[in-house]
Amino acid sequence: MAHLDRVFHSLSDGTRRAVIAQLASGPASISDLAQRHRMALPSFMKHMRVLEESEIVTSRKTGRIRMCALRPDMLATAQSWLEHERSIWESRLDRLDCFVETLAKEETTHGHE
Amino acid sequence: MAHLDRVFHSLSDGTRRAVIAQLASGPASISDLAQRHRMALPSFMKHMRVLEESEIVTSRKTGRIRMCALRPDMLATAQSWLEHERSIWESRLDRLDCFVETLAKEETTHGHE
Repeated sequence: MAHLDRVFHSLSDGTRRAVIAQLASGPASISDLAQRHRMALPSFMKHMRVLEESEIVTSRKTGRIRMCALRPDMLATAQSWLEHERSIWESRLDRLDCFVETLAKEETTHGHE
Repeated sequence: MAHLDRVFHSLSDGTRRAVIAQLASGPASISDLAQRHRMALPSFMKHMRVLEESEIVTSRKTGRIRMCALRPDMLATAQSWLEHERSIWESRLDRLDCFVETLAKEETTHGHE
């Protein structure tokens, strides 16, 4: 549960979602990522930490450059949760449809009697 | 953007996700929902406010009972965002596959020369 908390918390900020969108097209260095956001570096690094803590983003230092990459399996976890809840909701709607249909049929049958 | 912030923030807490899961099976009263959570009512009501602010949950007072229902279109917004990012990621992987295949073919062709 705690892990899903962190994943959804990561997604609840526009800057972090923009970083995810950027990394979806391929790995990038911290400085490349930071350049696109008009934000002081320490604030930007806080967002990167949140993304790493939720394991949505992973980073590795190569020489003097820290490269970041997306771990899409973590987004998949969030997606699965949403899909599951929507499928429960939709099967409930299907059952309601079915119920209304049965009522309508009964109405017709009684009408013909 | 601010709306997605609120939707994902709503989803970042276990109690709120449990309420969503409960409402996916059908509307429920505030007291029904609160009963399932071992939590002081004021704390529980804070969670309900977060869910209503993000428009994931809607509520209506009928007499003395406040009934809550899910608005699954708000979950759909979050799901769409995740799907979009994953599709970008996956098309990137497809392009990489394609590139590796082309390299392999060129290798074979040069090998035969």
